[in-house]
Amino acid sequence: MTSIDGSSLCDVGFIGLGVMGKNIALNLADNGYKIACFDLDQDKVDEAMQQDQLEQGNKHARLIGCKSYTELLANIQAPHTIILSVPAGAPVDHVCSHLIDAGIQADDIVVDTGNSLWTDSVERETQYQGKFIFFSTAISGGEEGARFGPSLMPSGDPYAWTRIEPLWNAIAAKVDPTTGKPMEDYKIGVPVTFGEPCTAYIGPVGAGHYVKMVHNGIEYADMQLICEVYDVLRQVLGLSAFEISDIFAKWNTGPLDSYLMQISAQVLAEEDPDSQQNEHKVALVDKILDKAGQKGTGLWTAVSALQVGSPAQTITQAVFARSISAFKAQRIEASHKLAAPNPSLLNELCIPDSDTTPNQDGFNDAQKDAIINQLHDALYCAKICAYAQGFQLMELAAKEHGWKLDFAKIAKIWRGGCIIRAVFLQSIANAYEGNEHLENLLLDDFFAKQLEVFQTNWRRAVANAALSGVPTPALSSALNYYDAYRSANLPANLLQGQRDFFGAHTYSRTDQPEHFKYHMSWGADDRVQTRVRK
Amino acid sequence: MTSIDGSSLCDVGFIGLGVMGKNIALNLADNGYKIACFDLDQDKVDEAMQQDQLEQGNKHARLIGCKSYTELLANIQAPHTIILSVPAGAPVDHVCSHLIDAGIQADDIVVDTGNSLWTDSVERETQYQGKFIFFSTAISGGEEGARFGPSLMPSGDPYAWTRIEPLWNAIAAKVDPTTGKPMEDYKIGVPVTFGEPCTAYIGPVGAGHYVKMVHNGIEYADMQLICEVYDVLRQVLGLSAFEISDIFAKWNTGPLDSYLMQISAQVLAEEDPDSQQNEHKVALVDKILDKAGQKGTGLWTAVSALQVGSPAQTITQAVFARSISAFKAQRIEASHKLAAPNPSLLNELCIPDSDTTPNQDGFNDAQKDAIINQLHDALYCAKICAYAQGFQLMELAAKEHGWKLDFAKIAKIWRGGCIIRAVFLQSIANAYEGNEHLENLLLDDFFAKQLEVFQTNWRRAVANAALSGVPTPALSSALNYYDAYRSANLPANLLQGQRDFFGAHTYSRTDQPEHFKYHMSWGADDRVQTRVRK
Repeated sequence: MTSIDGSSLCDVGFIGLGVMGKNIALNLADNGYKIACFDLDQDKVDEAMQQDQLEQGNKHARLIGCKSYTELLANIQAPHTIILSVPAGAPVDHVCSHLIDAGIQADDIVVDTGNSLWTDSVERETQYQGKFIFFSTAISGGEEGARFGPSLMPSGDPYAWTRIEPLWNAIAAKVDPTTGKPMEDYKIGVPVTFGEPCTAYIGPVGAGHYVKMVHNGIEYADMQLICEVYDVLRQVLGLSAFEISDIFAKWNTGPLDSYLMQISAQVLAEEDPDSQQNEHKVALVDKILDKAGQKGTGLWTAVSALQVGSPAQTITQAVFARSISAFKAQRIEASHKLAAPNPSLLNELCIPDSDTTPNQDGFNDAQKDAIINQLHDALYCAKICAYAQGFQLMELAAKEHGWKLDFAKIAKIWRGGCIIRAVFLQSIANAYEGNEHLENLLLDDFFAKQLEVFQTNWRRAVANAALSGVPTPALSSALNYYDAYRSANLPANLLQGQRDFFGAHTYSRTDQPEHFKYHMSWGADDRVQTRVRK
Repeated sequence: MTSIDGSSLCDVGFIGLGVMGKNIALNLADNGYKIACFDLDQDKVDEAMQQDQLEQGNKHARLIGCKSYTELLANIQAPHTIILSVPAGAPVDHVCSHLIDAGIQADDIVVDTGNSLWTDSVERETQYQGKFIFFSTAISGGEEGARFGPSLMPSGDPYAWTRIEPLWNAIAAKVDPTTGKPMEDYKIGVPVTFGEPCTAYIGPVGAGHYVKMVHNGIEYADMQLICEVYDVLRQVLGLSAFEISDIFAKWNTGPLDSYLMQISAQVLAEEDPDSQQNEHKVALVDKILDKAGQKGTGLWTAVSALQVGSPAQTITQAVFARSISAFKAQRIEASHKLAAPNPSLLNELCIPDSDTTPNQDGFNDAQKDAIINQLHDALYCAKICAYAQGFQLMELAAKEHGWKLDFAKIAKIWRGGCIIRAVFLQSIANAYEGNEHLENLLLDDFFAKQLEVFQTNWRRAVANAALSGVPTPALSSALNYYDAYRSANLPANLLQGQRDFFGAHTYSRTDQPEHFKYHMSWGADDRVQTRVRK
């Protein structure tokens, strides 16, 4: 078949040529696909086409610009496959209704790759049934990932997946199966054909976006944990950004090896271009305002965790840490008004690996090394717990929504392309491959052993932060998660007593079936325990 | 005017005679109001009328039973005031539509006292405009409070409030203005006329329910903090429930004096009636299953905090602590699988007030006293932070919704009737009376001083819990809140660097206006910082 311009028809259509869209389209082109493009802003189409020409030295055009939805459909092989990269919300429905007007058919597929709320995708599948197949794919990896290999989390109609799969397999990031690490040799125009692609069918429509949302929640926790360690290193040990960069670069060769560790080392190493006339090197990070932005996915994860009753407390603390950073003016005022820890508490710091007691004159080298090691182990253990919380949340959400999620697969497609990519994810994949019914990552032999080995320093790091006044909400909430999870008995028995006292909410007894509910007439002159029929 | 049965007309109508409704109606009756009653379940009306007869020795009926909405309206003086105590959600609208059918008028008032979501109240006010005035009042205090004096948080049309105010003033809990403590001499049939009533107009419709929701969020934190202290006392010091009861009873005479402290002491003192044949006294609390229930208001508070960007992390940790308690079977499994802290960490506990180092043989009396004092101070400081988070949340929500909340008043009406009533609330009222623009409770002179004095032991308590493996998510998140809030510099500068690195999210510089946004081409061969126009 030939298109209206006489050349052969395109393989897929692409709507939305913003930075992400353009890069995904070029990535598809590198992998041999011919793409019909449309954007309400014609300049964006032209820009993408120019970049296509530039990158491949003005050979045949791989991106074909279209001026209308009708022209777009006419330029693609039927049944049509159309990929959207437009802002989440109303624009998605706007495009869909125009595609219907332009004559899209029931066996055509529209793939939404934007940052849609997963519940919106569920509604859209129903809404467009019979008109076309609505399919969703969440994408992680930013601009760079989109161009050279993102992590893709597709979900929706299984038949549609058979048609989408080759495309996503082609453009996804690839992982070296022998090392579990992402391939590094991405080049413009050269597709990476070796390795395991970072994409896998997740489940019914919406499931992919849900999983991506949890990915982002974990990302929030991961970033916050690194920031807390940085904060202790600069505040307690007085290290410079450059010194901390060296420590992080070293850590990036061990179990903490990950993209976020790597870029943190790079960010801390960056010199401030505006301070280059200074006698001493100034780190750019020391000039960056400490007010964190957020786009909402961390918040959505925390809200979902609260709603399904999944204790994702470290992820939530990371969201709140961003919130509190926004109160810069109040924090400055509070820093003058509120007392810092008594300096004598320095003498109580836990640094058993060193011979002498720390004092206000600073730490000796042995003490410094001990504190740095504590933080390394704390970061590793807390990271395990943050991931455990994320996977626990996915499991509970899957139960609630009737999804069958393959957690080994999910861990594997996060090994490359996405922001939280880390060697560590191979161990998570191994855990779920070894036991697909694993209820919590912490119950896996490998992770349980890691926590056994490294927890002593984690406990010291959290204790020392409390004594020295450096906030470590994520590091310590992770420890509290670990300690609560491994508690056969929590103090919720007293809580149930309180609730029954003031609200007659009843309690169960440990020596009776759980569904027997009791009420005590606490504090009455003649106290009676009665079994309540509910 | 006389009613259809020939007697004088009733002052108010009452719909919904469940436990709460019946008790509010009887409370109104004690205060001289004559009440027309209706319930879809006629038995409940009969029961309320019988209790009325019983309590006052068969004198004149104060509750008049009605068999229909029409009869109810006919028995009340116009303009009608009708109080609802029906389940939140659809039942409220069901009753409202029946009242419209029965001929309710535009100047009649319907007061919803159920546990409605505050946004539902906002919608209802608009929905019923012109048909009657929809007014809302959130009530705290449980059954007991409803009968003898609750805390009432009314909101809605200011004219309606002029008609409701005398009723709520009459039935509200009363606080002794000289001590700031609730009056204790409630008796059936004897209204308390002395003291400051625990009710005040909160603001536009919905505001009252929002404030009540935050009350419950604080209540979650307060309860969890007490539970954590109990857990350390039993796990680290090995104290019995009865011994801990004595400690709590003693604490209830100092700055921690509160209803929740008092009932916790009572719950811990209660003997198990099923174990009375035992040689030794068995505490009932030791037989209660440690799985906490929840009704949703704590969760709503946490979700709202996430949404308005208010760092209510201790409240949220309390919600998650209830969630994790539900995983009893997994916790038992994990208790076998996951390692406890190395016992050698006991030697590193911070107990500077004692001469000797603790060891595995247990603690001596001086060490025990030191640990108990640490926990007392930790509970007090963490409680201050939990309340600060609640008030900060109300302030941010008020800004978002255009409410003008009077925080001194809110603190005052919580001194009696409600679950979190505490002498402590008088200090909060003083703080806001001294400075109505106070941005955070922690910035008040009194509370700043308390935290200065008591924080050393708080830090030790949190450090020791981390070292000894007892989960204290609320105690430690409160400390992290304190330390983050008083940090002029947080590590969010690194976080902004990370975000700009992988997502080009831009950052502000400390040496440039905040609205100037910069992007660095991190990691590129030729690095450039550019100012981005957004």
